[in-house]
Amino acid sequence: MPAEPARRRPPLIAVDAMGGDHAPDEAVAGAVAAQREHGVHVVLVGRAPEVRARLLALGAVDEIPVVHAEDVLGMGEGAMSSWRRPRSSVAVACRLVRSHQAQAMVSAGSTGGIVATSTVRLRPQSGVLRPALAVALPTRPNPTVLLDAGANADAKPEMLVQFAHLGVAYAQTALGVAEPRVGILTIGTEPGKGNKLARKASELLADPPEAPADAGRLHFLGNVEGHDLLAGQVDVVVTDGFTGNVALKSVEGAVRFAFEEVRSAITSRPLARVGAVLQRGRLRELRERLDSDTYGGAALLGLNGTVVIAHGASRAAGVARACVLARDLAEGQITELISKRVGPHRATWLQRLNPSEGE
Amino acid sequence: MPAEPARRRPPLIAVDAMGGDHAPDEAVAGAVAAQREHGVHVVLVGRAPEVRARLLALGAVDEIPVVHAEDVLGMGEGAMSSWRRPRSSVAVACRLVRSHQAQAMVSAGSTGGIVATSTVRLRPQSGVLRPALAVALPTRPNPTVLLDAGANADAKPEMLVQFAHLGVAYAQTALGVAEPRVGILTIGTEPGKGNKLARKASELLADPPEAPADAGRLHFLGNVEGHDLLAGQVDVVVTDGFTGNVALKSVEGAVRFAFEEVRSAITSRPLARVGAVLQRGRLRELRERLDSDTYGGAALLGLNGTVVIAHGASRAAGVARACVLARDLAEGQITELISKRVGPHRATWLQRLNPSEGE
Repeated sequence: MPAEPARRRPPLIAVDAMGGDHAPDEAVAGAVAAQREHGVHVVLVGRAPEVRARLLALGAVDEIPVVHAEDVLGMGEGAMSSWRRPRSSVAVACRLVRSHQAQAMVSAGSTGGIVATSTVRLRPQSGVLRPALAVALPTRPNPTVLLDAGANADAKPEMLVQFAHLGVAYAQTALGVAEPRVGILTIGTEPGKGNKLARKASELLADPPEAPADAGRLHFLGNVEGHDLLAGQVDVVVTDGFTGNVALKSVEGAVRFAFEEVRSAITSRPLARVGAVLQRGRLRELRERLDSDTYGGAALLGLNGTVVIAHGASRAAGVARACVLARDLAEGQITELISKRVGPHRATWLQRLNPSEGE
Repeated sequence: MPAEPARRRPPLIAVDAMGGDHAPDEAVAGAVAAQREHGVHVVLVGRAPEVRARLLALGAVDEIPVVHAEDVLGMGEGAMSSWRRPRSSVAVACRLVRSHQAQAMVSAGSTGGIVATSTVRLRPQSGVLRPALAVALPTRPNPTVLLDAGANADAKPEMLVQFAHLGVAYAQTALGVAEPRVGILTIGTEPGKGNKLARKASELLADPPEAPADAGRLHFLGNVEGHDLLAGQVDVVVTDGFTGNVALKSVEGAVRFAFEEVRSAITSRPLARVGAVLQRGRLRELRERLDSDTYGGAALLGLNGTVVIAHGASRAAGVARACVLARDLAEGQITELISKRVGPHRATWLQRLNPSEGE
């Protein structure tokens, strides 16, 4: 269990005003809501005249500072083209974090572009092989953290072990779970099931080769299957970025599908339609909870600075939630926690990999 | 489009009376229902005295022949231990298919055991690298066939191309789709996205190296993401058995989760509870449709004989549905169709693989 982090100055969150399908309107409104309703300290990054006009409309021009960035990453832009643009709002927000002017960054822009830009500009933490995307699934009573949700399509077993450490740090920091339980996503529940990657990673997780320091201990429970993702049996589920992304989107698609089928079922007959009217409010609440908890923000973990990626379709509420998550992760000092967990193991990790994989 | 299969003697379906959580009761009742209600010709395989007692209770002892098999595969048994048992009901059912006494086999036993036993006893068709498990997802108006749903945890790109042919043959035979649209499950919609396996398989699917015969043509539409699985945009989705199994179970788990959340939402307030009562019938119907259409039967394709694996928890209705699927596949001559699609390409497939992968 990590030591209680010392209370320092509240973290400042750099919010990309230009990222997302509804930017800058919803991004700016989200930042304002985060500060006003949740007490998150924010700074907006983007085209200053556009951002100030929105702040003015919200009566918030004196509340929130703006840092100008003349360029914007397009939503459809590939990773390569994105990180070559040093004046994009994402790049400028990264610079604020790198120089410790801000403690974390939030954007609703394209995931590929943000992962590429922030990996290049913030760099992986010492000892971290690859950063990973962590998403909190809406299980109860606590969410389950799934990672990697898409940053690394091809992964190695050692990376999955590191993902476990990143996920544990997330669950401790953002979810307040003292000793998170870890599972590996695979097929079949018995040990020895799965593909080569999952089998090897499972072995490493069950029996770490070096005597782990206290900070590096994992509470590994073994195999988890696709239908357990929402069952809340573990706090952290690790997998490679390909499988994680497919699983996450399968869950998203299936929940949406089930809701549409339910809606069609409960309005298909006159008597049932009466029932539907009686339930409308509750179902709407439920749908929002599932949507937003799952996709409100994915945290890119393992870089020198915290990055939260809100869903591209986020409205103000989604951006505000992403700001709260970024604040919680920064306040809980997740990068320091990850450094304690992964740092001491670095030499061993690197030895096991090809030289070219060391960085 | 395949030629209309010639009408031959109706196929006989060998039903494993001993497989499944509720065997032999539900397996026998399912076989009886398949024959009485759906006109499927069945033969039951299992411990004859037990099976006959059930048939007697259903007044069907003179309707349905029984073939004795003294041994039973346990539900928890691994693949290796399963296929070593030559007198299990699954092995005996395979023998009936191998000797052309039956045209297809149905079992609700353990998937691992059935895949291992039937692969050894029926052997892959000439030219087929690996058999694959195909599952029909409950999309509308036609189901979408997902394969491989778990037979091969580690696959090669060439196998995914073959899975496309197997899936097309399934969609043509069991679903009546003249020219099935094929997609590959991956992350990201643009070409070049995904892990190494998906990228390479996608290239092969988009640009087959040899001039395809008419029978071997594929209508490949490109990338499909996890949230498209239930959207019905394609008729066949190919992936490796690890990703396919994770995706399938993620969908299953998410649908179940959504239903439970809906049930809790619509019964949490007195007024809403009234609504729930009004809708009970419709919701139950819906849940059954989603459960059974998705998991009623997975077809193991690519062997010398058709094998349908019903869900282990199947009741009589699920077993009967699996019998209907087996009959449709056999009647549509799916093995002949697969042979036409995959056979001519064999030399090329084998050349590309390591010698050890040839069989």
